[in-house]
Amino acid sequence: MTVELKANERLDDLQRNGYRIIQNPEKFCFGMDAVLLCGFAKGRESDILLDLGTGTGIIPLLMEGRYGLKHLTGLEIQEESADMARRSVALNDLQDKIDIVTGDIKEAGEKFKSASFDIITCNPPYMIGNHGIKNPEGPKAIARHEVLCTLDDVLKAVATLLKPGGHFFMVHRPFRMAEIMTKMSEYKIEPKRMQLVYPYVDKEPNMVLIEGVRGGKSRMTVEKPLIVYDAPGVYNREIYDIYGY
Amino acid sequence: MTVELKANERLDDLQRNGYRIIQNPEKFCFGMDAVLLCGFAKGRESDILLDLGTGTGIIPLLMEGRYGLKHLTGLEIQEESADMARRSVALNDLQDKIDIVTGDIKEAGEKFKSASFDIITCNPPYMIGNHGIKNPEGPKAIARHEVLCTLDDVLKAVATLLKPGGHFFMVHRPFRMAEIMTKMSEYKIEPKRMQLVYPYVDKEPNMVLIEGVRGGKSRMTVEKPLIVYDAPGVYNREIYDIYGY
Repeated sequence: MTVELKANERLDDLQRNGYRIIQNPEKFCFGMDAVLLCGFAKGRESDILLDLGTGTGIIPLLMEGRYGLKHLTGLEIQEESADMARRSVALNDLQDKIDIVTGDIKEAGEKFKSASFDIITCNPPYMIGNHGIKNPEGPKAIARHEVLCTLDDVLKAVATLLKPGGHFFMVHRPFRMAEIMTKMSEYKIEPKRMQLVYPYVDKEPNMVLIEGVRGGKSRMTVEKPLIVYDAPGVYNREIYDIYGY
Repeated sequence: MTVELKANERLDDLQRNGYRIIQNPEKFCFGMDAVLLCGFAKGRESDILLDLGTGTGIIPLLMEGRYGLKHLTGLEIQEESADMARRSVALNDLQDKIDIVTGDIKEAGEKFKSASFDIITCNPPYMIGNHGIKNPEGPKAIARHEVLCTLDDVLKAVATLLKPGGHFFMVHRPFRMAEIMTKMSEYKIEPKRMQLVYPYVDKEPNMVLIEGVRGGKSRMTVEKPLIVYDAPGVYNREIYDIYGY
């Protein structure tokens, strides 16, 4: 299948089932966060997945490539990103399996059937507020700052849409970890598994990967550290494995 | 100063100011947890410290040796441990600086003046309940299981006794991390700094060191990983530094 590429768009190979993704480097390209989240997540062939704030669809594409899954939906508020995601889905012949829906996370609870997803994933904006952003309506600002959606908005949607016992996978920044755990507990999405991502073995972590279970009991597993670089420019073996090289 | 050693007691060197501690290996000896907690904690010469559940007084001795501090109190419910702690304090000529008080953490809020401590430290029992313990009244069970005191009891005392802006330092097990963060937030002891202790670089962490600030704002620092062993039997350089070798 061929699809139209618009101005400034490019095609990137996902190293997974031959899948490719359309991105526009002038807008927003996916980062290591999304890839590590999919490596941390788990899925079964019978699972129905929802990705909140899917952007150009990187998480549904990688999750399908990794775990198969029964059906995947990506929800995205920015029509331009959703359009790119839809064309990437078509490019990879996944129209029967992946739906890209344009819409707002804050209205997700009404848009989809309650308790209908086995898995919800989210790579949300990390930064609180929008102070000092030059262009708060630009796609980079929307992806990085809580301009259109907060952690509470995400968790509220998850608390409504996830099946009891279903799994929520999120990547975030460690500086918000206490807030994340407290709020997940409040929304009855119990934190059950966590992994810290350290750029180097002697540096502070810059990402936290977290799994919650709707209605789970309070007891969590903290995984071994995920170290990104062995030396400048040299990825740790595990990172290559997650990327699929 | 010489002090009496009772049956089965021994003297251990703390590698810090020449301090020694009286321990009884048939009862309970301090572990790496207490030492790492004191390495993670911070203190100033003007600070007043309270150690909740001080056992044989290892934390007040190490905190005094490391940071000086103005005055330290160790609260211990088991008279036999408190007696050992008092004799260790005398052995190191620290009677003017360290008080060992026999008493229950659950009554600490009434025993001491509200909001009177700059620092509270705690190496609490890690395990929930007391199922399957052979001797639930023994000193090892009391130190390891929440027989006489729960996480809530500790945090309630901290919330009463710590000055606003004062610092709480605790070591615990990672499997209770979500509960710890949620409850600290509830008691307004905001988690502000955390470090995970991994036995090896490729293993799950077995301790979490955490700092809370009474009335602090929600934003935390996660430290670089603390790796205990470089190889079996070979401590990482940082561990030697913390022990003071």
